[in-house]
Amino acid sequence: MIQPLRVLVLCGPTREYLDPVRYISNASSGKQGMAVVRETVRRGHRVDLILGPVDERPPLGVSAHRVTSAREMYDTAKSRHPFCDVLIAAAAVSDFRPREYSVVKRKRDGGPWRLDLEPTEDILQALGREKGLRVHAGFALETEDPLQNALRKLLTKKLDWIVANGPEAIGAEMGEYHLLGADSSHAYLGKLSKTELAAKLLDAVERTAATRCYRR
Amino acid sequence: MIQPLRVLVLCGPTREYLDPVRYISNASSGKQGMAVVRETVRRGHRVDLILGPVDERPPLGVSAHRVTSAREMYDTAKSRHPFCDVLIAAAAVSDFRPREYSVVKRKRDGGPWRLDLEPTEDILQALGREKGLRVHAGFALETEDPLQNALRKLLTKKLDWIVANGPEAIGAEMGEYHLLGADSSHAYLGKLSKTELAAKLLDAVERTAATRCYRR
Repeated sequence: MIQPLRVLVLCGPTREYLDPVRYISNASSGKQGMAVVRETVRRGHRVDLILGPVDERPPLGVSAHRVTSAREMYDTAKSRHPFCDVLIAAAAVSDFRPREYSVVKRKRDGGPWRLDLEPTEDILQALGREKGLRVHAGFALETEDPLQNALRKLLTKKLDWIVANGPEAIGAEMGEYHLLGADSSHAYLGKLSKTELAAKLLDAVERTAATRCYRR
Repeated sequence: MIQPLRVLVLCGPTREYLDPVRYISNASSGKQGMAVVRETVRRGHRVDLILGPVDERPPLGVSAHRVTSAREMYDTAKSRHPFCDVLIAAAAVSDFRPREYSVVKRKRDGGPWRLDLEPTEDILQALGREKGLRVHAGFALETEDPLQNALRKLLTKKLDWIVANGPEAIGAEMGEYHLLGADSSHAYLGKLSKTELAAKLLDAVERTAATRCYRR
């Protein structure tokens, strides 16, 4: 039996507001992240959850840090990361946000609207620099060359594990997944439910964690 | 007892996709529209529901036309409008959409992104031109001069009734509402639940419908 781990889970989408009403986001339901949370709790580990705006509620006994924007998720993740042994980044963080925020709701009859978007903070990149002995796992959702892009993300963000899937997995019950490891392993996992995928990922994370020695 | 009416309800937000993953939307939960649907059914009227992407499910016995974008909501509303006596537009339709759609997910490391937004179809304006004897009711959510703007919307869209509220009502349980009428009436409704507001609006709609003679 592996010792209980302190697992930091990032879950849900983020919203980047253009004005008081409108935002840029994506259809992430938070279901995959919540499946990871439930599986982690079931195995006796401790969960620290950072949760974007979703209808899903955390399971009983898990308290969530609620955030809205990528900036808030970044700040909260930075502050919680020192206290985890494992990071599972299952959030669909917005990569872009409006450079300017309009404090009034813009009207349709004002005509076209030119919006400048800037990249948001790269949370995995930043936490990767402070990784130490932690196990880091993430997800790659790509519309082109999913495996190539997932491998690139695994290496540049210094992840131990990455799950590759396509956009059809967003909000859906089942998806088709690959699991790539920093040990150059590549497993085709086939079609799985989010709960089944969470179990496969936790198996891999526990294997890696067992090879590392955590100071408490 | 008023005769049963055929009520077309527009409900939920719309999503305007920038690429296969990201979209512009708003936090509309569809709860207000669903409260209208339930109240309408409860009073013995027939509901024709056009529903944007929300987790809320229509009540048993009500079939929904599911749509995603403002364009789809516009097309569906145009095709269903001839068959209604009453239109209740409770959807938070996106006023803007990207001029161009990127078929691949754009990457953060590609740098800034200049996005040109164009106005979407004005559904109420278009249906107002084909109004005939129908009763049209809508909602105005404004961050500035809510009553002035609601009145302007009432007149330009040829509505019979408009509910004015602020952005704090989005997704919330309670809101503070005003009801303005084409008969120049103005009622401050106070703080109400979405169900209570639906009842007030249906009262007004039924009163107006009773003064009109529908051919079947």
